[in-house]
Order: sequence, then structure tokens, then C-alpha cells
Amino acid sequence: MNDCCGVAAMPDVQNYADTRQLAINKVGIKSIRHPVRVADKSGGVQHTVASFNMYVYLPHNFKGTHMSRFVEILNTREREISVENFESMMRQMVERLEAESGYIEMNFPYFINKAAPVSGVQSLMDYDVTFIGAIENGRYTHTTKIVVPVTSLCPCSKKISDYGAHNQRSHVTVSARTNGFLWIEDIVRMVEDQASCELYGLLKRPDEKYVTERAYDNPKFVEDMVRDVAAALEKETKIDAYVVESENFESIHNHSAYALIENDKTHPTQISSEGTA
Amino acid sequence: MNDCCGVAAMPDVQNYADTRQLAINKVGIKSIRHPVRVADKSGGVQHTVASFNMYVYLPHNFKGTHMSRFVEILNTREREISVENFESMMRQMVERLEAESGYIEMNFPYFINKAAPVSGVQSLMDYDVTFIGAIENGRYTHTTKIVVPVTSLCPCSKKISDYGAHNQRSHVTVSARTNGFLWIEDIVRMVEDQASCELYGLLKRPDEKYVTERAYDNPKFVEDMVRDVAAALEKETKIDAYVVESENFESIHNHSAYALIENDKTHPTQISSEGTA
Amino acid sequence: MNDCCGVAAMPDVQNYADTRQLAINKVGIKSIRHPVRVADKSGGVQHTVASFNMYVYLPHNFKGTHMSRFVEILNTREREISVENFESMMRQMVERLEAESGYIEMNFPYFINKAAPVSGVQSLMDYDVTFIGAIENGRYTHTTKIVVPVTSLCPCSKKISDYGAHNQRSHVTVSARTNGFLWIEDIVRMVEDQASCELYGLLKRPDEKYVTERAYDNPKFVEDMVRDVAAALEKETKIDAYVVESENFESIHNHSAYALIENDKTHPTQISSEGTA
Amino acid sequence: MNDCCGVAAMPDVQNYADTRQLAINKVGIKSIRHPVRVADKSGGVQHTVASFNMYVYLPHNFKGTHMSRFVEILNTREREISVENFESMMRQMVERLEAESGYIEMNFPYFINKAAPVSGVQSLMDYDVTFIGAIENGRYTHTTKIVVPVTSLCPCSKKISDYGAHNQRSHVTVSARTNGFLWIEDIVRMVEDQASCELYGLLKRPDEKYVTERAYDNPKFVEDMVRDVAAALEKETKIDAYVVESENFESIHNHSAYALIENDKTHPTQISSEGTA
Repeated sequence: MNDCCGVAAMPDVQNYADTRQLAINKVGIKSIRHPVRVADKSGGVQHTVASFNMYVYLPHNFKGTHMSRFVEILNTREREISVENFESMMRQMVERLEAESGYIEMNFPYFINKAAPVSGVQSLMDYDVTFIGAIENGRYTHTTKIVVPVTSLCPCSKKISDYGAHNQRSHVTVSARTNGFLWIEDIVRMVEDQASCELYGLLKRPDEKYVTERAYDNPKFVEDMVRDVAAALEKETKIDAYVVESENFESIHNHSAYALIENDKTHPTQISSEGTA
Repeated sequence: MNDCCGVAAMPDVQNYADTRQLAINKVGIKSIRHPVRVADKSGGVQHTVASFNMYVYLPHNFKGTHMSRFVEILNTREREISVENFESMMRQMVERLEAESGYIEMNFPYFINKAAPVSGVQSLMDYDVTFIGAIENGRYTHTTKIVVPVTSLCPCSKKISDYGAHNQRSHVTVSARTNGFLWIEDIVRMVEDQASCELYGLLKRPDEKYVTERAYDNPKFVEDMVRDVAAALEKETKIDAYVVESENFESIHNHSAYALIENDKTHPTQISSEGTA
Repeated sequence: MNDCCGVAAMPDVQNYADTRQLAINKVGIKSIRHPVRVADKSGGVQHTVASFNMYVYLPHNFKGTHMSRFVEILNTREREISVENFESMMRQMVERLEAESGYIEMNFPYFINKAAPVSGVQSLMDYDVTFIGAIENGRYTHTTKIVVPVTSLCPCSKKISDYGAHNQRSHVTVSARTNGFLWIEDIVRMVEDQASCELYGLLKRPDEKYVTERAYDNPKFVEDMVRDVAAALEKETKIDAYVVESENFESIHNHSAYALIENDKTHPTQISSEGTA
Repeated sequence: MNDCCGVAAMPDVQNYADTRQLAINKVGIKSIRHPVRVADKSGGVQHTVASFNMYVYLPHNFKGTHMSRFVEILNTREREISVENFESMMRQMVERLEAESGYIEMNFPYFINKAAPVSGVQSLMDYDVTFIGAIENGRYTHTTKIVVPVTSLCPCSKKISDYGAHNQRSHVTVSARTNGFLWIEDIVRMVEDQASCELYGLLKRPDEKYVTERAYDNPKFVEDMVRDVAAALEKETKIDAYVVESENFESIHNHSAYALIENDKTHPTQISSEGTA
């Protein structure tokens, strides 16, 4: 790895000039784990472990970046990085790396304390969350991506069957580019309110009766799920753009049903297209 | 890697003697993919792609094994290995490696053509299958491991709710040490017959009505699932020992319900214990 | 799942009109496995197993799509789908689903028979390949994505050390949107020619000497890797747009070094940006 | 799920008697995540996130276990479980579940603060750790499993090549059944001392020179790695039994080299055998 850190006696290979005339969109480190601290809506602070991807833009005339500086940024923060200082960590990174653009993706499990719907018994539910920060042309954009596991119950199965209806766990994933502060809890709520039923860590029997009947009363196709979540995301003015996906791990098949809606409110007439290449 | 293959001019490091007095239980290659051909019960031959682990025992006085010979065995078989010649591939391996014991694990997706229960429309269902062969003290043992995805429907949820019942996809995994030939299809059938309902690739609406009602009529706890499969495995005289597990990806929680039964019929009074160390 | 297949007596829920005014960008099935057949450059045909994602666009005024038709398309092709008929499978899908846009991602392991550099001994190397087809506004675009595992050797480590140099396995991933036919083998070659050294399934000792010295003679930073591959992709006129990534699983760290270059030759001045939302 | 928790008005299905005459070796919950706190050797306390599997033995005459009680045990501990109270959590579980045997597997990322070998700069290294507790016949056994990533450098490649040697990241996994307290740090040290070189999160250029030369001076086959670690584990009297594995992600192949040694010092003459069935 081209870690070259000011030791004068050693050749500093990555500082050589480069003549291939090819800038590098992103260069850095990937899949490095670090403990972090995240503030939660209840006023507390959650300790969790994050996996980081940290990249900068490299102009065509530089041979390499300074890999060790990315790791230094993580290690100089006393092992703790909060959501409040995510932009400042981004700014520090592009400054330390002398870069004009930079990107950080920080993926971590996050817990919400939920009360069961009837008994009120409390337990933690876990969610996969990713903060995605980008600085381009000096402008910072923040995207929060959350995977919310829910119950989906099939309207067709309910309608055509004399009794019962197939249901299953589904993953609803929201990526929201925000222009103001939103709690993770707020985005999770927008999703869980649209599901056939939300999930809980701990349910007593009266709770299990409740969630069973609630899902049956509230059937949703995968299409309904993404539309109803999209409608909620459209209304939230702190969200500039979003992608909502639902993957239903069908209990009657060995494959998933899937749907996706995306919209950039700042470019409302744009036709959606695949971004691969 | 210590590939040293008869080139006289080069030092053959792994043939040196070793003085640490420690035999190696298993040494070889892991996670190498190769196309294979497997005969199926319908009389055809299935082309699939397998991932292989291939190991031998190494006595304390040998420094290393011959890694490249494992790969040669895969590549000299014209890219095709059938279930019929699995033992002979094992025998070839221990001979080529001059080993007294050897192990091969071959994991691959396998397809069964199923007819939907009402419409009769046909489609493929995929299963993860692993053949596990061992030669120890000259004796060959064969274990087939199959992950069978099924529907499970909760009896408690059905009983306590006015309508509906939570259900979900479950993975029932059977590892069966056999003393005679059994088709993959035979073991899959033993599992699917015990499930709340089996899965299909393709279902028309009358089929969807059928599987919904069948699962509701046939609720199973995770405990019932492993017991009913175990009872079927107990009866099959070609099976000497088995482990049956069920993991239910609960549609009302973000974790799984899980159960396991294991039995070695050739050591019937043995107390089960963790095998980690 | 909303499988509704022309059975008049049953309500066809997903054909109801929808009033939420939200079109769905992609809806369909995800992670369904099916055997396929792919022609290779040597003139043969390779049997492999693919995982498919199949989606269509759904206008705002339709409640749901016809999930079972996706599965029918896979099952009516006699279990075999070749690269030659990928576009026709796409056309068939959008017609059967009465959709204006459609997307198929087909991911599969692919094998290339390689000769070791000195001994000439032959063995298979496996590559992860994804065909990504899209039909939008009647226009078909095809993207091939290939993960090519290679050796990378660090120039800095070589330069500053009295002997040795750290090296490791790296994954170079190319996504190429093509305007004409390219063999998988052709794209793999463009990558392997740029690596410190390419990988082989089987190496004899003289081969191992060769690849060790070749990597040492040919050190590459992660930045060099993506630049050198990008330069090759720029020259290939059958490629309209590309993304090239390299992830080096550093042998001296527990994280990866990573770099990415992307370019759309049909929009040459476009500034690259994150596509999340 | 059969959560039945003392609500008299509701049928308690899993308390029914069972007549199939089949005991269940393990039944409970799998893959539930929870924040935990683990004491470390430096005197501090580490916050991390664990994934739990929690099982009990179920006699043949009971229909089901009480799934919700497992989750209650996690949630009544104020979100924190330390290594010191792991046995007491085990004892609480078997008591609450009225079981004679019980098993908990708790898997979590753990961090060790390391100083780079020359510059002394500090950074965190992450390790995957699993605590495996079992109570059988009233007796508690504790196994610690740790995946230690290291550098391995091939002796054959070094010997036959004029310069350089292939090296790569390897995972050395130790499962140690202990009869007394050992720090995670102690077991990690036994592994890292045997590797061609240990890994670091952060290395300056003089450190990179050091680790490059150290690995070249200290070549190890996969066989050497497991033997040298096994020799260290044999000497540690607090370890009753162990499995040591090494998987080398070969930089010159697309597959791994692998070796395993296992020994139960309390049954020294036992012949190793596959535990599958």
C-alpha cells in the first residue's frame, strides 16, 4: 500500500507525477471497521461498530493518494464518531488528503427500543444504517440509507383463499438525500407505518395475536409497499431525493418479489435510468 | 503455496522432514469452483457448478502436502464429476496424495422440476446440496447435506388469532450419512412432506389458493418440523446417522426460530454434545 | 405474490386501477436461480447456473405486475439461455409483461481454460460475470460486468524494502456498456494484461517461480491498476461507457485499498457523481 | 412463533404433551443482534454489537419451548453483557427455560489497540470473536473462537524465485475450550507470534519496510502456521481442547490453501473424525 508519510530518507513513490492523463474518481480504503458512537432520538448515545469506506478524488497529474491518512482520521477521533460531526469528519478528510472531492460511507447496526403493541413489553430492534457523505465542488450532501425489516401479507393470497394468507419478512430499504436533520427513528417510522405490520424483538401472546390480525387486516403487494413509502417520502420537505426498495422473501417461493421507486425532487422531470456505466 | 511437482532442478521444500511431532488432521485446498455433472432421478444429467474443499491427513513427519495435485484431480476429469464416481475421486485423491485419510466437500445448486399442485404447470426449484466424502482407516463414508426451503406456519399464531396466522420461509437442512444409494430427490421429499407447505418456482392463482390453505391447515412449530423430519429419517434404513435443523425466518421478528435433532443410529445411546473443541 | 394468470373465476387484484399517481421504476422478481448455457470464445458452450433479477416499469395507473410471467419466461426456454438470445429474452419479457421498460441482471460463474506460463499445464479459472440488459424507450443497452481476480504487488513496499514486497489477491471489476459484441474472454484479457500478475488454477514449480518474479517485476498501486485498465477500455471502440474498480485485499492490513474510474464516452465532459439518490 | 407467556385466557399450545418420542437437542433463537459490553485486557470496557444464538435441550415429552424468554434474557440485562457474566447468563437461561442443557453462541467484533512496529503509531485492529458456552449435565464449558487475520509468505515461492515471494492475507481461526480465564488478547498473541507477520490498522513507511522484510524473513506454509499455533496451544494449560485452522487467500490462485489441527488434551489418543453426522 502506498503509505508514505513524510519520512525524508525514504522514496515517496506515490508523490511522483503521473502522465496517463486519467483522473481517479475515487481512491481510498474500503471495509475498515471502527467503534463509533451515535446519538439517538431518545436523548441517549448508542455505541456501535461501523464499517467504513473512505475515498477521495485524485487529479490526473498525481500518481497516488496517502492511504495511511484515512486510517489516521479514524484513529485520532478517540474511537468515537457521532452523526453530528460526520460533515466535519468529511471536511477534515478532504483537507488532510488535499483533495477537491471526498466520499465516506459508514455502515452500522442501530437499535431502537420498541414497546410491544398490547403488553407494552420493551425490546430492542436492530436496523442496518449507512451514512453516505459526499463533498463535490465544495458542496456537502448527506444521504441516509436504512434497511427496515417488516411483515408483508399478500392481498391476492388473502382474496382468493378461503382462509389464511401467505406473509413473510420483507426488507424495505430507503436511501434519502436530506437537506436538514432527520433522526434515523423518523425515517424508520415512515416505513413501518406503511407495512402490513412492523416487527418487534419481543412479543407476548396477546401481542402475537395483534400482529397476526393487523397484518391480515392490512395486506400489501410489494408495489403497494414502495408506493406508500414513496408517498410519505414525497411529503417530507427535508428529503430532496430518495430511492425506496422492497424485497419480499416470499414464503411460497424460493425467490423474492421486488420493487423500486426513485425520485429526485430537485430534478422532477428526469427519466430514471440504470446507473451502471 | 507449496506446489512442488517433480522438477528435479528445484528444491522441493515441502518434502523436507518435520520435527514438531504434530500431525495435521486436514490440509489441502478450499473454495475452488469447478463445473460438474450430476445424474438426477428423472434419468437425465444436470450440469451445475460446484465449490470444492479437498483435504488429506498429513503425518507428523512430513513437512507439507502437494497442493497442486488436488487441482490436477479436478482438471483431469474433463470438467465433469458425477455422483457415481464420487468415491472413486476420493480414492484417487488419497492415492495421488499418498495419504491415509482424505475428505472432499462438494457444494452445488441442484434443480428439481416440480409441477404446481393444481394447474400442474412445471418449473424448476433450486436446492443447495453438499456431498461430503471421507476416507478414514480405509473406510469410505458418504454424507449428503441438503438445504430444503419450505413454508412454515405458526400453530400458536393460528390458534390465538381470530383470522390469519404468521408464516414464513424456513430452511430445513438435513445431513444424512448413508449406507446405500439415495437420490437427492428422495431426501428432499422426506422434508417437503413434513412442511406446512412445500415451495414452487411457479404458481398460478388456483395453486396460490391451494398452498395458502394447505399451510393454514397444516401448522408446524420449528420443533414439529425437526421432529417430523427426524421421524422420517429414523425409518429410512439407508441412513445411518443424521442431523436435521430448521431455521424459520420469522415474519414477525428480525431473528430466526431454530431447532436441531441429531442421531447416530449406530451409536444409539450416545449423548449429543457440541463438537467445537 | 400477485400472480394472476387468467383464471376467470378468481378476482384479479393486481389488475385494479391505482390512484396514488406513483409509477414504479422497477418491479419484478429477484434472486431466482436457473441453469443457463453460455457460448464461449473457444467455440464451445458452457453450462452454468445463473441468479436472475427481472424487472419492468409499471405506470402509475396500474396496481400491480404479473409476477408469475417472469418465472414462465425462464421456464419456457428449456432451462437454457445463451448470451446470443439475451436481447430477445429482454424483448420477450417486456412484451409478455406489456411494459415499456425492462431490466434483466443475470449473474453466473464462468470458466476460462488457461495454460500455466512455463509448464503449459491447463486448468480452469473461474470469474463472476453479470449480464445487465435494459430496454428503455424501445432502446436496448447491454452492460457486461466481470470480477477478475489478480495479483497486485505494492511498488512502495518494493522500493523501501531491502528485499521482498507485500502482494495480495485483488478484485478488478469492470462494468462495460457495449455497442457491439465482445467476448467475456476479451474483457478479462484487458484486465489481466494490466495486473502485476494474472492468476491460475494450477501452477507447477517453474510456473510459481515465473509468477513470483513477474509480480515483483511489475508492481502496481491500486491507482495504477484502475488507470491502466481504464486506458485499455478507452481504446476499445465497442465500449461506450465503463466503470473499473480495484479492491486490493492488503496482505499487511485487515482492510482493502480501493480505486474507481468511470467514464461515459458518449457524455465525455460529465462530472462523475454519486448515484445513490 | 410459540411465544406463550402466562396469559391464562389464551391456549398455551407449546405446553401440550408430545408423543413422538423424540427429544430435541437444541431449540431456541438464532441470529438476534444486541449491544454488549466486553472488558478488555487494558482495563477498559469495550462496547460492541453481538449476534446471539441461544438454544436449550427439549425432552421428548414437551411439545415446545418458550421462545420469548430467550429474548427477555437479552433485554433484561440493560443492553449490556460482559464476558464475566457469560456463565451466569447461561445459568439464568437454563433456569428460565426449565431446561437441563443449554447453549449460547455470542459473535462480535473486538478491537485491540496496537502500536506499529517502528514508528509506534497506534491504531485499532478488529477481530471476529465468538464465545460459545454450553451447560450439559450441570457442567459448564466455555469455548472462545477467534479469527486472527495475518500475513503468510510462501517458503517455496521464496526458495525457487530469484527475488520476491508471494504472500497474502490469511485467516487463522482458533477455537479453544478453556478451564480458566484467558484474555482474548492472550489467544490473539499466540497466533500473531507464529505468523509470517502480524497485521496493523496503520503503518508509516518505516513500518511498511519492517513488515515487508519481516514476512520475507519468516516464510510459513499453511502447514507450518497451524503446527506452530498448535504447539503454542498445547503448552497453555488453561486450554483443554482446541481446533486451529488457517485459510490462506493465495495471491497467485483464486482458491485458498487450508489446514486444520484439532486436539482434545483430555482424550489424547482419540482419532480425529468428521463430526457432520
